Amino acid sequence: MTQVITKKGNRTKDEMIYLKAFPLRTIEEIPKIKDDVSNKMIIILRVTPLAQKNVEDLKEAIEDLYDFSTSIGGDIARLGEERVAITPPGVKIWRGLV
Amino acid sequence: MTQVITKKGNRTKDEMIYLKAFPLRTIEEIPKIKDDVSNKMIIILRVTPLAQKNVEDLKEAIEDLYDFSTSIGGDIARLGEERVAITPPGVKIWRGLV
Repeated sequence: MTQVITKKGNRTKDEMIYLKAFPLRTIEEIPKIKDDVSNKMIIILRVTPLAQKNVEDLKEAIEDLYDFSTSIGGDIARLGEERVAITPPGVKIWRGLV
Repeated sequence: MTQVITKKGNRTKDEMIYLKAFPLRTIEEIPKIKDDVSNKMIIILRVTPLAQKNVEDLKEAIEDLYDFSTSIGGDIARLGEERVAITPPGVKIWRGLV
């Protein structure tokens, strides 16, 4: 990885991290989510659509994403009842007291 | 800003970005949120507690955070009905189609 730093200290476009929020409707979306996280995207997944359709699929999806995020050195955590956050390496989910 | 890159290309601890999710209960929390974003934290704010208490305060808080994120070159957007994401420079909120 090459990091090119501009004069102002901002990351260049290549180094930009994106935060992408969307609903998880089927387990078939998991490979795309992994691709996104591999491409340095933070994913905020609303899991209720899949939860209402197929709890077993949701369980499998979450386990799969958990193993994936661990393997790449990223992070994963629930955000409230409805959402799961998955992050690429370099982005950690805060678990401390606020 | 100095970026120290380890052999694996990961950011060092100093360069770690944190994602922090918590509820907004009073407008008095806004300065702390700005501090957090200035310290390279991504904030996912559940705004319903303040919305239920004082809609005018919430409106003011959101406008304040909007001006702030614009001024520092960060980003801000709603995530669903209940949450607002505020990001530091270098993190953009995806608004494209998925």
